[in-house]
Amino acid sequence: MTISHRRDRLRRRLRSAELDALLVTDLVNVRYLSGFTGSNAALLIRADDEVPVLATDGRYVTQAAAQAPDAELVIERACGPQLAAKAAASGVRRLGFESHVLTVDGFAQLQKAAGDLDFVRAAGTVEALREVKDAGEIALLRLACEAADAALADLVAAGGLRPGRTEKEVARELESRMLDHGADGPSFETIVAAGANSAIPHHRPTEAVLAAGDFVKIDFGALVAGYHSDMTRTFVLAPIAQWQRDVYDLVATAQRAGREALAAGVVLRDVDGASRQVIADAGFAENFGHGLGHGVGLQIHEAPGISASSAGTLLAGSAVTVEPGVYFPGRGGVRIEDTLVVGGEEAPTPELLTRFPKELAIL
Amino acid sequence: MTISHRRDRLRRRLRSAELDALLVTDLVNVRYLSGFTGSNAALLIRADDEVPVLATDGRYVTQAAAQAPDAELVIERACGPQLAAKAAASGVRRLGFESHVLTVDGFAQLQKAAGDLDFVRAAGTVEALREVKDAGEIALLRLACEAADAALADLVAAGGLRPGRTEKEVARELESRMLDHGADGPSFETIVAAGANSAIPHHRPTEAVLAAGDFVKIDFGALVAGYHSDMTRTFVLAPIAQWQRDVYDLVATAQRAGREALAAGVVLRDVDGASRQVIADAGFAENFGHGLGHGVGLQIHEAPGISASSAGTLLAGSAVTVEPGVYFPGRGGVRIEDTLVVGGEEAPTPELLTRFPKELAIL
Repeated sequence: MTISHRRDRLRRRLRSAELDALLVTDLVNVRYLSGFTGSNAALLIRADDEVPVLATDGRYVTQAAAQAPDAELVIERACGPQLAAKAAASGVRRLGFESHVLTVDGFAQLQKAAGDLDFVRAAGTVEALREVKDAGEIALLRLACEAADAALADLVAAGGLRPGRTEKEVARELESRMLDHGADGPSFETIVAAGANSAIPHHRPTEAVLAAGDFVKIDFGALVAGYHSDMTRTFVLAPIAQWQRDVYDLVATAQRAGREALAAGVVLRDVDGASRQVIADAGFAENFGHGLGHGVGLQIHEAPGISASSAGTLLAGSAVTVEPGVYFPGRGGVRIEDTLVVGGEEAPTPELLTRFPKELAIL
Repeated sequence: MTISHRRDRLRRRLRSAELDALLVTDLVNVRYLSGFTGSNAALLIRADDEVPVLATDGRYVTQAAAQAPDAELVIERACGPQLAAKAAASGVRRLGFESHVLTVDGFAQLQKAAGDLDFVRAAGTVEALREVKDAGEIALLRLACEAADAALADLVAAGGLRPGRTEKEVARELESRMLDHGADGPSFETIVAAGANSAIPHHRPTEAVLAAGDFVKIDFGALVAGYHSDMTRTFVLAPIAQWQRDVYDLVATAQRAGREALAAGVVLRDVDGASRQVIADAGFAENFGHGLGHGVGLQIHEAPGISASSAGTLLAGSAVTVEPGVYFPGRGGVRIEDTLVVGGEEAPTPELLTRFPKELAIL
């Protein structure tokens, strides 16, 4: 399962859409389809030519040749316009472009460089391919999730979650421990939310001090070779109150229902519904104000979204989060989140990538 | 010098350009003009109305009211289209939009929401304002540069630069020490480049081990309250060779020439030329393959660029880097970089923000 196989899939889609070529200007998509990770690039994929054309500037000559050895290289600062002109010169008539990424000014430059082409909006074409992960991608997601699992285990084993520490201290230690376990960095800004702050879904760590009786909600991930992990665990600093046990049990039950609903072919909003219904039945629908999950890969949020308003169905090989939460403003909240890979016909059970325990932990 | 003063400056420019309003969709520009830091927002600034309109979604109701108390709030997920419609409804006829940021699809949504407006490309309007920093911004840039200075001083004092350590270890320690000194994080991915790697202008830290006789080039910065610092220092691990002394002296002389050329009204490419000429006169023009510097502020790279191809002149109150380098592929290289604020008539000498010493240090 190589990168050229990804391009084969794309070329089949281009032919279905009657596009002669796609001009890829989103840098994550360029990476996905070529392996190149530089900060200035564009990629031309032609429906009838196996050789992609990668444009980048003079800073990246060596890197581009090393990372994308099977591409034809064009060295030019204005990558997109150059490839549009090349496409026009090589007989491309209908050229797809990433209208969800390209700016108005960038598009004007394309048109100026290759004005007689028929530019066709092709927003999300590559993102749709990326929704289904190949074996290499899943291997990297596993590594990212393992680094996060190990870092959290170390943090807890070392007594890192205790009254008196600040949210920022905990976040910093967790991020440092992910590096110890091979992460290139955090996959997004680590959330550590203690006490009443745990009721804020996307709280940024502050100097707030962890205290006895607090929920401590930790939402974080590791980045490994471009792939992101995403996991949330919520702990309690003793003593625990009954309402905390109740909300934890509710969210854990809802999270399990969401995981159990993950299967190829299931309508996305039904996955959301399977988890949400558990919370609604308990009378707390209003306290779960966000979607159930999202795809994870080269971006921390990617297709598919899993919410009440999602269209479409779940695909085998998608990597998605399941992360219900119940929040009581001013008091606290619980979110439990895993990253899983949706199974296919031969192995229909989803693969759980984030393996840190989810049983209620009172520290 | 408040945020409303920034909007006053913008409104004068809108009137000069005969625009009734500007729709700001770049999130950094939204932050600059409103104080709001959320991840989904748009801002409408009308030429004849002091009250800005800030749109964001339901996640940010509390935060928006706290950060932008003088704005009219609109809560709506599709921020840009909503404000375009509001502009049309309130009598705006010529609406500027950020054509360098807005995507083709995003623009189509604006047109659909408020089709009878005259949309006018206004790329870079806010970025041009941001080129001149106000007192509050300079205070934050000072803090960011001080955090970086202090972290590097700690690293060196603790013997952190020594044979046997890896580039990654050094980078990680430096980033950690910036946090100790109040940074919110690194302002970009820290560059630590040892030995032959120091000849690569933008090297990413690897497991390469620092060795006796190496140049160690460190390019890094701290992020404080949204403001970025940027500094490069190059050290030598003893023993030093004569060619290393020579290249260090050359770059130091060129860097001084660049700093001394910084003054309001000077043509930007002449600033670049003042430093570049020193290196060219020594016969190494080919070994300095990048521009001399760039503006620094809410972004690590912003206006003005300072290179041989820059148009325009330097403005009083700009914060810019001066960073010549001389690189010998396969052997090593030196870059020395400061961040400075260009002075005005009353105090024409630039203010040096990155104060870590630049004398040759053999460790």
